Amino acid sequence: MTTMNRQVLLAKRPQGAVTEDNFRIVDVPAGEPGTGEVLVRNEWLSLDPYMRGRMNDVKSYVPSVGIGEVMVGQTVGEVVLSRDSRFAPGDRVLTSSGWQTHAVAKASDLHKVDIRRAPASCYLGVLGMPGITAWFGLFEIGAPKPGETVVVSAASGAVGSVVGQLAKIHGCRAVGIAGGKAKCDYVVQELGFDACVDYKAGALHGDLRAACPNGVDVNFENVGGVVLDTMLSLMNRASRIIVCGLVAEYDATTPYAYTRLRSVLVNRIRMQGMIVFDWKDRYGEALQGLAERFAAGKLKYRESVVVGIDNAPRGLMGLLRGENFGKQLVRLA
Amino acid sequence: MTTMNRQVLLAKRPQGAVTEDNFRIVDVPAGEPGTGEVLVRNEWLSLDPYMRGRMNDVKSYVPSVGIGEVMVGQTVGEVVLSRDSRFAPGDRVLTSSGWQTHAVAKASDLHKVDIRRAPASCYLGVLGMPGITAWFGLFEIGAPKPGETVVVSAASGAVGSVVGQLAKIHGCRAVGIAGGKAKCDYVVQELGFDACVDYKAGALHGDLRAACPNGVDVNFENVGGVVLDTMLSLMNRASRIIVCGLVAEYDATTPYAYTRLRSVLVNRIRMQGMIVFDWKDRYGEALQGLAERFAAGKLKYRESVVVGIDNAPRGLMGLLRGENFGKQLVRLA
Repeated sequence: MTTMNRQVLLAKRPQGAVTEDNFRIVDVPAGEPGTGEVLVRNEWLSLDPYMRGRMNDVKSYVPSVGIGEVMVGQTVGEVVLSRDSRFAPGDRVLTSSGWQTHAVAKASDLHKVDIRRAPASCYLGVLGMPGITAWFGLFEIGAPKPGETVVVSAASGAVGSVVGQLAKIHGCRAVGIAGGKAKCDYVVQELGFDACVDYKAGALHGDLRAACPNGVDVNFENVGGVVLDTMLSLMNRASRIIVCGLVAEYDATTPYAYTRLRSVLVNRIRMQGMIVFDWKDRYGEALQGLAERFAAGKLKYRESVVVGIDNAPRGLMGLLRGENFGKQLVRLA
Repeated sequence: MTTMNRQVLLAKRPQGAVTEDNFRIVDVPAGEPGTGEVLVRNEWLSLDPYMRGRMNDVKSYVPSVGIGEVMVGQTVGEVVLSRDSRFAPGDRVLTSSGWQTHAVAKASDLHKVDIRRAPASCYLGVLGMPGITAWFGLFEIGAPKPGETVVVSAASGAVGSVVGQLAKIHGCRAVGIAGGKAKCDYVVQELGFDACVDYKAGALHGDLRAACPNGVDVNFENVGGVVLDTMLSLMNRASRIIVCGLVAEYDATTPYAYTRLRSVLVNRIRMQGMIVFDWKDRYGEALQGLAERFAAGKLKYRESVVVGIDNAPRGLMGLLRGENFGKQLVRLA
């Protein structure tokens, strides 16, 4: 019996906001693993803001997804057939196989994950790329000192939630920015941030100033646009801005016009763009640090789950509109 | 006989461009030095873009000049009376006495300069704050590697000219941006830059791209506005931007709107504001490096001189419009 694989392909490039028309769903045979390969049945697909950039045909971190190609992404899945001695059926693995229910993958491209230590989906979130991103961005670029104020946007999201919790553990004042009261309450009450500002409440600048009585030393920026422009006016002398994401700009057909860049000069701000791949050789270091804090119960997380590969496009669209609450996942099996 | 001191005061704050109305010229007695003080007759006054910021009543690097106060600035002058054993009449000293022909200064605030090693005015330019600014900005923030491309705006100016020459000595490709053919010719033919782009020629992006076939690794930004926004689109991965000045914005009543900040993320640019005071404890290191290269004939410079304290306001206005050609000075005696 042939195992069928359902895939989501990029059908056409978005003009502005992503729509379901941009995708096409197809069923193809999953294929047979050759020597040194395994067949994986994907269980969880990670949805992340960077995917929006891959849908464009312009220079970004990495090449675009081609028209008719499978959308890129990380998954956690179960090995169902192995032709490599390192993997056995039942093993859970982290893959880069993208938006599909099955994948034949080279064993050398897979990483085994231990689902006794943490639920499988965590390896796509707090113990995966988002956690690693938070770790290196905060500590390597932000370099916060205990007592300093760290502000993070998209604070209830996969990266932001880890940034703020790490900042707290490090002895900093952690202030989040999130959309809506429910998310803000979660950020303060569950994640333990000192404060969280609702950017939808219409008083971003004043609310942030109130939440940061000593100004801002580190801004971990996931959103951009008016959020970043507002933050620029609140940064202290010799402060740092980690530009990790600009999700407010991704769907825009005209780029945001920033009017407060002069603050970089006046306050001698260091603003630096980051992509986690730049620390590829040091992932282990971050994962160990994250795992220790996770095991100690100090890294909480929340997930937004859509069910079924057919709903992956809607999941991404919601994520880009900020409708997710925590790490956005697609449950595939 | 009482020595009279002519001073230029800030009369009112500019709205947009600086005008002569913003200043008032007065004559007051120069005063007598007390114990530990000297009377200096200023010979050269330095005019610098940062002075525009001091005329505003807003937070900047340092406090504003108050209405009715002497405009700030560095001078080189001759000691005419000394009541401190460290200085004798005839000594040349670097002072922070501002826009005035004479000053009673604390001996401890003065630095002797050696006019046998370099003309007195050089201590306000290539061997002064502009040179030190170029040194630390380029090497500490820009951190260029030999073979990399360094672009500097206001390339014929006091800071820019040193940046490009240091970059060349360091083995980099040095590309200038300047206004008009005469300045560009000077930058290439006299200062030895590899290329210089005329921002007034109307093809900034295309001309810069042609001048930087391998992209840009370091941008030493003195101008801001459309120049910085254009540079953002030409920066290489892991490149550095030194935000040293944003003179294009200083006179603007509405701030410039930057539309290419996304490049900071995509290219993982490190953008950092600087003010030379932050390296105060290390000036000696820069001065030694500059003096060695100057003595070896490797640091050329050019000066724009207006004559007489009464012309200082017009000198600053011209500087802010880019009408100077090289280091802008006022000759006072």
